[in-house]
Parts: sequence; structure tokens; C-alpha cells
Amino acid sequence: MELLQDDPEYRAAVVDLLGVLAYGELSAFERIAADAAMSPTLADSVALSGMAAAEFRHHEELSRRLRDLGVDPLVAMEPFRTPIDDFHAHTKPSDWLEGLVKAYVGDGIGLDFYREIAVRLDPQTRDLVLRVCEDLGQSAFIVDAVRSAIDEDPRVAGRLALWGRRLVGEALSQAQRVAAERDALSSLLVGGVDRPGADLAEIGRMLARLTENHSRRMAEMGLAA
Amino acid sequence: MELLQDDPEYRAAVVDLLGVLAYGELSAFERIAADAAMSPTLADSVALSGMAAAEFRHHEELSRRLRDLGVDPLVAMEPFRTPIDDFHAHTKPSDWLEGLVKAYVGDGIGLDFYREIAVRLDPQTRDLVLRVCEDLGQSAFIVDAVRSAIDEDPRVAGRLALWGRRLVGEALSQAQRVAAERDALSSLLVGGVDRPGADLAEIGRMLARLTENHSRRMAEMGLAA
Repeated sequence: MELLQDDPEYRAAVVDLLGVLAYGELSAFERIAADAAMSPTLADSVALSGMAAAEFRHHEELSRRLRDLGVDPLVAMEPFRTPIDDFHAHTKPSDWLEGLVKAYVGDGIGLDFYREIAVRLDPQTRDLVLRVCEDLGQSAFIVDAVRSAIDEDPRVAGRLALWGRRLVGEALSQAQRVAAERDALSSLLVGGVDRPGADLAEIGRMLARLTENHSRRMAEMGLAA
Repeated sequence: MELLQDDPEYRAAVVDLLGVLAYGELSAFERIAADAAMSPTLADSVALSGMAAAEFRHHEELSRRLRDLGVDPLVAMEPFRTPIDDFHAHTKPSDWLEGLVKAYVGDGIGLDFYREIAVRLDPQTRDLVLRVCEDLGQSAFIVDAVRSAIDEDPRVAGRLALWGRRLVGEALSQAQRVAAERDALSSLLVGGVDRPGADLAEIGRMLARLTENHSRRMAEMGLAA
């Protein structure tokens, strides 16, 4: 908490971080719940809805923390609406399988990013961010669903692999936009004038880890990254 | 619990009741969350998403109770998919306001019906059904949103009043279909050979109460029923 009181730039970065996560979870909730309605079976629908409901719980936890810091969550989320809405507008799943892959890949990249940034946070914020991460593993059913779809018709693997690349490309391009616009948030990652952050080599290694994990997740679903 | 063990027809009726409620809540969750994505403001989106998340919690509670009774929730929900999916297919909101009115009217009728049927249940099932009802009042923001839309453009009142009538008509027609197909569930309401249920006069009064409450809710939003 010391950092949060003493360092206005750090505080601004944390508010940005909680804001982008809170809006990301809210919009993931809305998209995944909408995709659940396209489910071919009732079991799929229940599983995907459960995943969406977990995203909403995260959103609520992050909002509560913002209110504890004296910040209106609506205000904190506002700067991130356009990039995140644009991401979703550019990556509308055309069917159930694309929705599944998007949920799995999106959840995975989100969680990886949470964990990367957690090491730069004060203990209390870090605990919250890591707690949100714990709520994992609900998406294991996606791996089975995608794999059996490929077994049935191997041609879908090519289409879904392309789709996975498009998701990552869009995510990166929106992330760059956020980084360019939100100084405090970016300097939490790369360091500012008076606080050491990651150097370029470290950022390179972080991107390598994120990419590696993404490829591993694609491979789990039977897809080339 | 006695009734549940000793009376197979009562047990079948309770399983049907929990099944129709569980599927109703699941599909309400999916539709309301999808509507939340159409919200004009972020505050509206958060409020509507919170309503959807509450529906999913109800779904989970009802499913848990089914599992406690040794019934797979997927099996219990199955008979009600077609009527409830048809209801939603025939009442797709064409905009945000229609979605709000549908959520408010649907939630209200659902809760009224829960309370009406609760008096015919064993204590444990009744407690669950009433607990699900308690989670109310989240939808108060809808009244404000609809009223201010009418203030801005009084013509929407006529369109939304018609929409409200269509919702009730569709709900009744699907409810009749369920009643015709599910004997145990209907006789929970109207009584069977060996158990007194509501007589016709009582059913008439129940329908009158449901209709009255619906009109009151429409009036709250500034709409003619």
C-alpha cells in the first residue's frame, strides 16, 4: 500500500491496470455468454456459461478494489472501451468453434499477462491479480471439443489455426495502442525516469514467453500456431 | 423430503420444476448477457451484466439441488429446451430498450410464478425456490432507463407496450405447451387423482394475480399493459 500512497505515477498505473482488466473481464463475460447461446449441446452451453460467469466474478473483484482505492470503476474502465471493443469487433467468431478457440486463447493470453505483470505490483494488488488467475482450468472442455471437431473433419484445423493467428495479431495491435496512449501503465512495465522497469531484453523475453505459451495452447487444441 | 421419497409422481413434478427453472435461468443468463453488449453506456452494461450473473447463480443452485436428488441437471433440463428456446426465438429484442423490457417483464413473471408454486412444495424445495426469488431488485435500473427513454421520445411507449403484450402472449403459449406435455408438473398445480391441487377457481385467481402484477410492472415503466 505504501507505493500506492506515495507514488502518484504508480497509483495511476495500478488504476489503469485494474481498469483495463475490469473492462476486459466484463466484455469477455458478455461475448462468451453470447457464444454459449450458439452451443450445439446443452452440456457445452452450461460449461461455456460457467466460464463467462467466472469472468464476471473477476470483473466484480477488480471493481471492488478500484472502489477501495476511491476510484469509480466506470471512470477507470472508460479509456479501455474503444481498444477492447475494437478487438471484439474485429474478431467476431463466425461459428461455435471459432468462439471456443477465441475464449481459450483469450483467457490464456490474459492469464499469462496477469502473471507477468504481477511481479511489478505491491503485495495487495498482486494478491488480487493472482487470485483472479486461480479461477482457471474451467476451459479444459474446450480442448476436447476442438480436438473432436478436428477428428471429425480435419479441414477445420487449418481454418482455426488461421483464426488463432488473427486473434493474436489483433490483440497485439490493440495492446500497442493502449501502451502508446497510457503512459503510466506502460512505464509500470518498461520503467520510468525514477523507477527501474524491464529493459528491452527483458521485454523481449516476456514476449517470447507469451508467444511460447500461446503456441503450446494452440498445440493442445491440435492447432498449428 | 418425505414427499420426495414416498410419492414418485410428486418427485417427478419437482424434478420437472427444477429442470424448467434451471433451463429458464440458464437461457435468461445467455440472452441478458448478450443484450448487455448492446448497452448504450458502460453503467448500463455493468448493471445488466450483474442481472445476468445472478441468473447464472440461480441456475447453479437449481442444478445442485437436482444433483442432490440424484438427477443429472442436463437430463432434467432437456424437455424444456424447445419451448424456452422457441420463446426466445419468437421474442428477439430488436434494440436495447426491448431487451430491457423483456428482462424486466420476464424476471417479474418468473418470480411471481416461483412464489405461486412454492406453496405446493415440500419445505426444502420451497426454501430453495424462495431463496432464488430473494435475489431481486437488481432490475430497478430498468425502470429508470425505460422511463427516461419515454421522456425523450414519447412514441417509444406505444411500441414497447405492444412488445410487452407480445412477450406475455408468447410466454403463455409456451407455458400451455409445457403443461400439455408434462403431466406430473401440471398436476402439481391443478392436483392429480390422489392429491388435491388448485381447483379451476383457484387457477383463475392465480392467473388474475399474475396478470395484475404484470400490469403493475408495465405501469412502473410508464407503459400500458
